[in-house]
Amino acid sequence: MPGPEWGAEPEGTISLAYGFADPEHFPVAEIVEATAEVLGEDVNGALNYGPTYAGLIRLVAQRLQARGVAHASAQNVLISYGSSQILALLPQIMIDPGDTVIVEAPCFIGAVRSFQEVGATIESVPVRENGMDIDALATMLVTLQQKGVRPKFIYVTPTYQNPTGTLMPLENRKRLLALAEQFGVLIFEDDAYGDLRFEGEAIPPIVALDTKGWVLHIGTFSKILAPGVRMAWACGPEAIIQRLAKFKVEGSSGPFMTRVVERFAADGRLESHISDLNATYRRKRDVMVEAIKEHFPADVRYIVPQGGFFVYCYLPTDMPTVAVIKHARDHKVSFLPGMGCYANGQGTHEIRLAFSYQNDANIIEGIRRLGAAMKAARA
Amino acid sequence: MPGPEWGAEPEGTISLAYGFADPEHFPVAEIVEATAEVLGEDVNGALNYGPTYAGLIRLVAQRLQARGVAHASAQNVLISYGSSQILALLPQIMIDPGDTVIVEAPCFIGAVRSFQEVGATIESVPVRENGMDIDALATMLVTLQQKGVRPKFIYVTPTYQNPTGTLMPLENRKRLLALAEQFGVLIFEDDAYGDLRFEGEAIPPIVALDTKGWVLHIGTFSKILAPGVRMAWACGPEAIIQRLAKFKVEGSSGPFMTRVVERFAADGRLESHISDLNATYRRKRDVMVEAIKEHFPADVRYIVPQGGFFVYCYLPTDMPTVAVIKHARDHKVSFLPGMGCYANGQGTHEIRLAFSYQNDANIIEGIRRLGAAMKAARA
Repeated sequence: MPGPEWGAEPEGTISLAYGFADPEHFPVAEIVEATAEVLGEDVNGALNYGPTYAGLIRLVAQRLQARGVAHASAQNVLISYGSSQILALLPQIMIDPGDTVIVEAPCFIGAVRSFQEVGATIESVPVRENGMDIDALATMLVTLQQKGVRPKFIYVTPTYQNPTGTLMPLENRKRLLALAEQFGVLIFEDDAYGDLRFEGEAIPPIVALDTKGWVLHIGTFSKILAPGVRMAWACGPEAIIQRLAKFKVEGSSGPFMTRVVERFAADGRLESHISDLNATYRRKRDVMVEAIKEHFPADVRYIVPQGGFFVYCYLPTDMPTVAVIKHARDHKVSFLPGMGCYANGQGTHEIRLAFSYQNDANIIEGIRRLGAAMKAARA
Repeated sequence: MPGPEWGAEPEGTISLAYGFADPEHFPVAEIVEATAEVLGEDVNGALNYGPTYAGLIRLVAQRLQARGVAHASAQNVLISYGSSQILALLPQIMIDPGDTVIVEAPCFIGAVRSFQEVGATIESVPVRENGMDIDALATMLVTLQQKGVRPKFIYVTPTYQNPTGTLMPLENRKRLLALAEQFGVLIFEDDAYGDLRFEGEAIPPIVALDTKGWVLHIGTFSKILAPGVRMAWACGPEAIIQRLAKFKVEGSSGPFMTRVVERFAADGRLESHISDLNATYRRKRDVMVEAIKEHFPADVRYIVPQGGFFVYCYLPTDMPTVAVIKHARDHKVSFLPGMGCYANGQGTHEIRLAFSYQNDANIIEGIRRLGAAMKAARA
């Protein structure tokens, strides 16, 4: 349900609102097989008490190393219960009420909410075509420094950003890291969509460039395997990883599920599955973009992402999002309003569309309905 | 590894130290089947994002109702990531440094540690043959009241207590609840072993007697299914349940595992499995008690439990636990020293023996070795 602006969705609504994974592409047979194998081979390890399974930590560290994170190791990788756990815990251990946190605008508002819960003051840096505007960030850091404010961290999603789908170029990543070092501010890099690359060269995550301990990186199995397994990771400065581990009050991350995920992922199966997913999501992105070209008013701008789950749209001035919502309800289609992606009420003429969850036919029909709603909103 | 008193165990040591479940009695085939069924029937529910599975909450509420907890419902049952999560979270939401918490002595020290972590002052009430000494508790509550101290909660394990295996009679439970109401102190009832009843009539948990909202009850699938699934529950006053839910920062308790556990448990399978477990653990208790009769010095006292995982022993004055530890190392057997069950350094002549994990032959051989170590310690 796409938030309070919407209310209950009418029966038959096609939701393009949420970034759910495509349920037709969960590797069901492989998970069942992995479960049977794990229980067949080490039932005591899987089902009795025990620490976080070392095999999964090793697998995550190796995957990070393969993406250029040379310092990833068993000592600085933490398995978590979904990345939402780290998004909630990091502010708890770092933020006192009134502390400042810098975020992208627009961004994943779930993260912002967890920063606000512990009393953080939110400063927003605009997202342009290349991701977070580094010039604007530099200016903000100087201004804050003049006021005696040192932000606790910069929350950034440089790769296939949520909601805009933008990709921060390597050069900008280097500038961002240099600013973090210069001003002594941690970068909190959320790489939720980093593996969902449809085209273009891979750009290393910022943590791969970090030699001085200024980047805490999080990633998740939610997008590349399944959200339901509740399995994610953090990698960064050992001191922060250790504090996070101490505050992860649920203890280990589940002897059973950690082994099932590792077993599923081993021997190249995860990389092969990611490759299949990217073929699927690339096609669905193309289906959505083609439908947008056909059905949306020509003056609706949008970003074609090279990866991730979303197409982000900028509406003309005479087509405010609230007006589109009203007509979208009538046309039985839903989306995430831009206002749901900003901490400060911006986004009044923006919308996020997810191509991840619906099948091709529903994507086309959803976009057709939304195009009709846009035209009705304008009329 | 049974704690710092021990150091590394020599190769070939038989551990009677920890309350692990018996790995030969995990329902492996049923879990694999449940996994396949869940993924076959509702792959999107199990593997996509979602709230805590309502079916599992319903199952837990029904099981509690069957044990007399008439007010158990979807509104006051919370699924947690092992009961250790609630043992850590409840103090975080209730305790300020210097607040007083009442515990049993001896008790599950893991719980005490999590109370101490947030700065609680620990007051200990002795455990007698009938569990917590209610007269001593009453005296303590009066004394504390005279000092102006109102404890935040009384942590109690009335059924097959850890480590003593004692069972609190119904009458004492009623008195305990009456004291809680009179002094306005929450009872934090840990029912980890409540389903592991080998003989005797079932006594309702204290939460079943609670009509005014003075009992927060926790239970776990760790002992009746498997610790590795990391699944437990809390049931109690809605206001506390809601606060706990808010601070459970990992979000939902895993769409996948909650469904697998519910599916395994459904249609009477869990109750049938518990019945099998109780036959097994009853036999292992008997094996241990028989071996103790044969191999321990006659003046070692012990409690024969009617349920749970442990036999608790009281050593003669000339046989301090530290001396037994030294010789037990040489004889390659380990146990939990009584000092590991008290917050205040007591237990110097007590030991806890777990019959849950080892097979019959190892139990007999472990007790034989321990008997020899006791005799050597005395000589």
